[in-house]
Amino acid sequence: MPIHDRLRGDRVGSSGVDAERPHVVIVGGGFGGLTCARRLAKAPVRVTLLDRHNHHLFQPLLYQVATATLSPGDIAVPLRSILRRQKNATVLLAQVLRIDLVGRKVELADGAIAFDALVLAAGATHSWFGHADWAPHAPGLKTLEDALSIRARILRAYEEAEREEGLERRCAWLTFAIVGAGPTGVELAGALAEIARETLARDFRRIDPTQARVVLVEAGSHVLPSFPPELSGRARTQLERIGVEVRLAARVIGVDEQGLALRTEGGDPHARVERLATRTVLWAAGVAASPLGRSLDVPLDRAGRVLVEPTLAVPGARGVFVIGDLAAITSNGAPVPSVAPAAMQMGRHVAANLIRSFGGESLLPFRYRDKGSLATIGRAAAVAAYGRLRCAGPFAWLLWTVVHISYLISFRSRVLVLLQWAWLWLTKGRGVRLITSDPSSSRAAATSRSTPAEGTRSR
Amino acid sequence: MPIHDRLRGDRVGSSGVDAERPHVVIVGGGFGGLTCARRLAKAPVRVTLLDRHNHHLFQPLLYQVATATLSPGDIAVPLRSILRRQKNATVLLAQVLRIDLVGRKVELADGAIAFDALVLAAGATHSWFGHADWAPHAPGLKTLEDALSIRARILRAYEEAEREEGLERRCAWLTFAIVGAGPTGVELAGALAEIARETLARDFRRIDPTQARVVLVEAGSHVLPSFPPELSGRARTQLERIGVEVRLAARVIGVDEQGLALRTEGGDPHARVERLATRTVLWAAGVAASPLGRSLDVPLDRAGRVLVEPTLAVPGARGVFVIGDLAAITSNGAPVPSVAPAAMQMGRHVAANLIRSFGGESLLPFRYRDKGSLATIGRAAAVAAYGRLRCAGPFAWLLWTVVHISYLISFRSRVLVLLQWAWLWLTKGRGVRLITSDPSSSRAAATSRSTPAEGTRSR
Repeated sequence: MPIHDRLRGDRVGSSGVDAERPHVVIVGGGFGGLTCARRLAKAPVRVTLLDRHNHHLFQPLLYQVATATLSPGDIAVPLRSILRRQKNATVLLAQVLRIDLVGRKVELADGAIAFDALVLAAGATHSWFGHADWAPHAPGLKTLEDALSIRARILRAYEEAEREEGLERRCAWLTFAIVGAGPTGVELAGALAEIARETLARDFRRIDPTQARVVLVEAGSHVLPSFPPELSGRARTQLERIGVEVRLAARVIGVDEQGLALRTEGGDPHARVERLATRTVLWAAGVAASPLGRSLDVPLDRAGRVLVEPTLAVPGARGVFVIGDLAAITSNGAPVPSVAPAAMQMGRHVAANLIRSFGGESLLPFRYRDKGSLATIGRAAAVAAYGRLRCAGPFAWLLWTVVHISYLISFRSRVLVLLQWAWLWLTKGRGVRLITSDPSSSRAAATSRSTPAEGTRSR
Repeated sequence: MPIHDRLRGDRVGSSGVDAERPHVVIVGGGFGGLTCARRLAKAPVRVTLLDRHNHHLFQPLLYQVATATLSPGDIAVPLRSILRRQKNATVLLAQVLRIDLVGRKVELADGAIAFDALVLAAGATHSWFGHADWAPHAPGLKTLEDALSIRARILRAYEEAEREEGLERRCAWLTFAIVGAGPTGVELAGALAEIARETLARDFRRIDPTQARVVLVEAGSHVLPSFPPELSGRARTQLERIGVEVRLAARVIGVDEQGLALRTEGGDPHARVERLATRTVLWAAGVAASPLGRSLDVPLDRAGRVLVEPTLAVPGARGVFVIGDLAAITSNGAPVPSVAPAAMQMGRHVAANLIRSFGGESLLPFRYRDKGSLATIGRAAAVAAYGRLRCAGPFAWLLWTVVHISYLISFRSRVLVLLQWAWLWLTKGRGVRLITSDPSSSRAAATSRSTPAEGTRSR
C-alpha cells in the first residue's frame, strides 16, 4: 500500500478528515512551507508537510547559536507540535529525492507520495561558486548542525591558540575570516568581535583573546549591499568601532586549511593577490537554490531558482507552486529578495490561490510588500531601512530585537531568547560556549595541527 | 619546550603566579576534579586542570537532555569560565593517554605535562560486560553527545513508527527498553513513559503514542537496588502507575538491532529465555572505571577502580591521588558509592591533604558523609532516603527539585533549568524535541529499516 494511502488509516480516519479531499503536499517546513500549511487549516483539503528535519528553524537567529548565545532548542520548534491541533495536516520526516510532475508524485528516499497539488518550499543551500574543495575549510550556516559545528570550530580555535607555541601559528588560530558581507556575514563578524573582546577576554592564561583579528571579506564595494548606501556606510563604521577589519573589493580565489587567498581590486590598476593566514573561515557568501528545482524540468535562473509565473505557479504544471528562496519572481519591477517575510507572504498567497483553484476561481498574481531590512552588528548597534526611513544605532537595535522576538513562533522560544539576551547584555557572557560537535571535527583538528608537540618532561 | 613550561609564559607570569610554586595537575573536570581545583584557589600552588571536554557537566540531569526537557547549554558550563578568576589555575582541553608515575608526567595525545602532585579524577565510562557488539544497539548515557544521540533515537523511533506499515515492526519501534534499574535507568524510564503518555500524545496521526511500551529490565530483584527496600517497592509502584513495565530478575543475554534476549529467573526452577522486540534499547547497567587507572600500574578492583589508601593517595606514589568514580575506597565499613556528593567530598579532602603535605604535615584519612539518596520517577513522584528517614511521592519530588537546582554550578543554569521545568509542569510539553544528531545515526536508521518501503503511486 502506498504511503499516501496509509496516511488515511487509523487516526486520520477517526479524526474526521475526509480522505476524498484533495491532497496538498508541501515540501519544506521553513517560513514559506509552514505558513502555507497553517493557512490551509480550514480549507477542504488534506495537507501533508514533508521535511528532512523534524523542526521548524528560525534561521535569522541561527548565527546566535553558532556564536554561543542561544541553544538549538531556543530557536527550533518541532513541526509536529506546531501543527498538532490542525486536524487536516500530517507531518512526515522524509528526504525528498525528486518531483515527478508527470506521475504527480513526490519521490522519497523510501517511497513516494502522490499529490493533487504541490507546494515546493525547499529553500536554498550553500554555494562555493563551483569550488567544492573549499567547503570543508569554509563551512556555511543553514542548519542547526552547521551552527553547532561552527560554534565548536570557533571555540576550539582559541583552545588551540592557547596551546600553540609558534607565534605565527598562534596568530592564524586567532584570526577569523568571514566571507560575504550580507546580513549573515555582518552579524557573524559582529558577534565574533564581541566574543574576542568581551566574552573570552579573561578566560585564557597565555593568549589575549582581545588581540584576535576578525576579518570580514567582501567582493563588492559595500557591506550589506542590499541596504541603502548610507546605511552600508554606517554599518561599516559600527563594525570597525567594535574591532572588525572590513576588507571590501576583495575576491576570494582560494581557501584551504591554512587560510584564504584574496585578489584585491580597489583603486590599484593592477589587481593584487595576497594571503590571509587563518584557521577559521566562515562562508556567508554564496547561496544556491535547492537541487529539487532541477527535477521539475522547467526553466531556472542562474542561481538554480525556478522561474515561476506571477501567480507563483510552475509554468505548464497544474496545481504546482514554488515559494520562498527556491522561487525566482519579480514584483513591482524588482526581484523579490530571499528573506523570511517574502517566503511567508508567498506561503499565504499560495494557500489563498489553492483555495481559489479548488473553488473554481482563477489564480491571483503575487505582490511583495517590503517589510524593510534589518541587520544587527552588536550591542546596541544595528541598521534598519523601512521605505524611505533609515536608522542606525540603538534605536535600530531595539527595533531589531522587538521584530525578532515577535516573529519567533512559540511563546517558549520568546521567553528563552529574551532571557539569554538579557544575560548577554548584563554579563557580556555567552552562556552556551560548548564544544559538542561530532568527533570527526575534533579528529580533524587533532590531525591538522601543523607540528606535533613534543612529548618531553621538564623535571 | 614542554607544554608545562610554556604555560609559565606571557600572561601567567604577568598575573603574578610564581612559577616556582609546586605544580598540581588535575585530570578531569567533573564534580571531583573541579571541586579540588577550586579548593586550591588560595594554596601556594599552580593548578592545571585537564579535560577532554571544554565544559563541566551536571551529570545528574543529563537524562533530561536525553529526554528533550533540557538543552545541553542548561547543564554544562565552560570550565574556563568557572575558573576564570582563579589566577593560579590554568584549564587545558586535552586528551590524556596515560600517567607516567616514574617520569612524573601526564602523557597527552600531543605532548606531556610534568607534575609535582597529581589528582586523577577521570571518572567512569560504560561497560557492556565484555559484549562490545552490544554497544551500537544499546547506547549509554555519560556525555552530552550521548544524550543528544539518545534523544534523536527516541524521537526518530516515533517517526519511524508513524511511517511503518507492518503492525509487528511498528510495535518494535514503539517499544523502549532500558537495561538497569539504578537511578539513571529509573529516571529514563519515567521520562520515556511521560513522553509517550503526555508529551507526544496528540502529535501523530497514524500511531497512538500512549500505546508505546516502556520496559525497565533489571537483573536483580529490586529497582533502585542501592536504596532501602521499602523505597524500592514504592519506586516500582510509582513506575507502574505511570505505565512502565518493570521486569525484575531478568538478565540480558543478547542485544541486537531487533531487540533484547532475556533470561528470566524468578520463581520458576527452570530459567526461561525470551525475546523482547524493540528498536530502542538504552543502557543504564554497567559502569567501568576510566582506563587511565590501569596506566598507574597499581592494584585495581574488579570494576577497574584504583584501590587507594584511606588518605585517597595511590600506594607507593608520592603526591598522587585518585578521587571520584575512579577510586575504590571504604568508609565507615562500607564502600563509598559512585555519586556526585562523594566525588565532591573527595575533591575537597584531597585539596586539604595537598595543602597539608606542602606544609609538611601528614595526610588525613577520608571519611564519607552520606548525604542521602534521591531518585525521581516523574511528575511529583520520587523517592528519598536520608539516614533513617525515608519518603516517597510529592515531598520527595520537591526535595529532589530543590537539591538539584541548588547543586547546579551557575546562576544562569539555575534560572534556565527552573524555567524549563515550569514549562514542562504547566504544559506537559518537552521543549527540546529536536533530532539534531550526527548524520551517521540517521544513515544507520535509514539503512536499518527492515523492509524497503514500496515506491508506488496511488493515483
